[in-house]
Amino acid sequence: MIEAAVLGGIPEVRPGDDLAALLAAAAEPLGGLRPDDVLCVAHKVVSKAEGRVVDLRTVVPGDRAQAWAREWDRDPRQIQVVLDEAAEVVRADRGRLICRTRHGFVCANAGVDRSNAGGEDRAVLLPLDADASARRLRARLGCAVVISDSFGRAWRTGQAEVAIGCAGLAPLEDWRGRSDADGREMSATVIAVADQAAAAADLARAKDAAQPAVRLRGLGRYVLAADGPGAAAAST
Amino acid sequence: MIEAAVLGGIPEVRPGDDLAALLAAAAEPLGGLRPDDVLCVAHKVVSKAEGRVVDLRTVVPGDRAQAWAREWDRDPRQIQVVLDEAAEVVRADRGRLICRTRHGFVCANAGVDRSNAGGEDRAVLLPLDADASARRLRARLGCAVVISDSFGRAWRTGQAEVAIGCAGLAPLEDWRGRSDADGREMSATVIAVADQAAAAADLARAKDAAQPAVRLRGLGRYVLAADGPGAAAAST
Repeated sequence: MIEAAVLGGIPEVRPGDDLAALLAAAAEPLGGLRPDDVLCVAHKVVSKAEGRVVDLRTVVPGDRAQAWAREWDRDPRQIQVVLDEAAEVVRADRGRLICRTRHGFVCANAGVDRSNAGGEDRAVLLPLDADASARRLRARLGCAVVISDSFGRAWRTGQAEVAIGCAGLAPLEDWRGRSDADGREMSATVIAVADQAAAAADLARAKDAAQPAVRLRGLGRYVLAADGPGAAAAST
Repeated sequence: MIEAAVLGGIPEVRPGDDLAALLAAAAEPLGGLRPDDVLCVAHKVVSKAEGRVVDLRTVVPGDRAQAWAREWDRDPRQIQVVLDEAAEVVRADRGRLICRTRHGFVCANAGVDRSNAGGEDRAVLLPLDADASARRLRARLGCAVVISDSFGRAWRTGQAEVAIGCAGLAPLEDWRGRSDADGREMSATVIAVADQAAAAADLARAKDAAQPAVRLRGLGRYVLAADGPGAAAAST
């Protein structure tokens, strides 16, 4: 049995806020957090607490950003931020830049997002190192932590939540070489545990309701005694 | 609060079995199924009940299958089945054929799978029309139904469960044009509800434990009064 419970009452997070304290307090009405719980946290509050927010009024777009923004009717300041965050532009697709970030994630707009950014002229960036962010939260909260963002997928409509950081949770379960119910060796099954945990958590919350954290209970078999490899292991 | 509960005690499914009856019986110890429940069913038992299983001893591989199998040390009979199921080979990648199926799904080996197939010389195919399969199960069970398979993802390690069929569940939640918590219009957010439901269910079961069905409770806001558009709407 797995149970996903939304943490309520988390206020708008600002740079320098003690996010771990906010999360711990929000978990109290649910009975708190146990060592075998997995707390899934939308990256946006992590980024905000870590100051990874850009005031677009301070951004001076370069030539490339201006040209692109003109062609696709976009905000050139935001395009500049995307280019700054990208290690590589993988594909330019109808005004969207599919980028590889410095972390190695391939996603739209290098993870730069203006929705729920806390103001009209703001953009939220991905955390600098979401695995490290997860480790810090785990150390304070005493449970496994997943930090997530919603990514589009090739060949599927719609976005699914994926883990961009994790600590204390096995991000992958590798069944290669193990046997199926018939005793036949499974040749190519690696289960994206952390991504699926992020997706399960996302179902529990509403995008407009400022519900950035969800406690998953019942995933103890994937919870580690140490931080583990993090979500970087689950990105190619 | 979302709750994922595994249905236990489902026997090995054979062609012609009454899958709906097996699922209903397996749900009884959990208190049965409610109209606002979402029952997630691994496609393999649906395919088996529908006779979508190939005995590889009856397959005569053609030249293309034989050449490919030689090059990559694969079973030419299985490759032939993959080619038969594929509408198009999108990419050939280190012995794996990434195919577009006739349903429009892009996945490895056109969904042909030998693990948990019920025998060494057997391969399980995708259901002919998994949305129709889901509608039939919904009509019998009285709850929303998702039929799932695990797909690899571009740029991510590991497989995640996705919905290849659904009935009674909104496969996508479209936030475009709606507002975020700041009141700012969200420009490109479509949530893959059915895929995330499939992923949540997958976390609850063990791949080797013959646990093909999971009941999700708490997704009532996505449950429809009718069959709805099905999972075909969520595949591009």
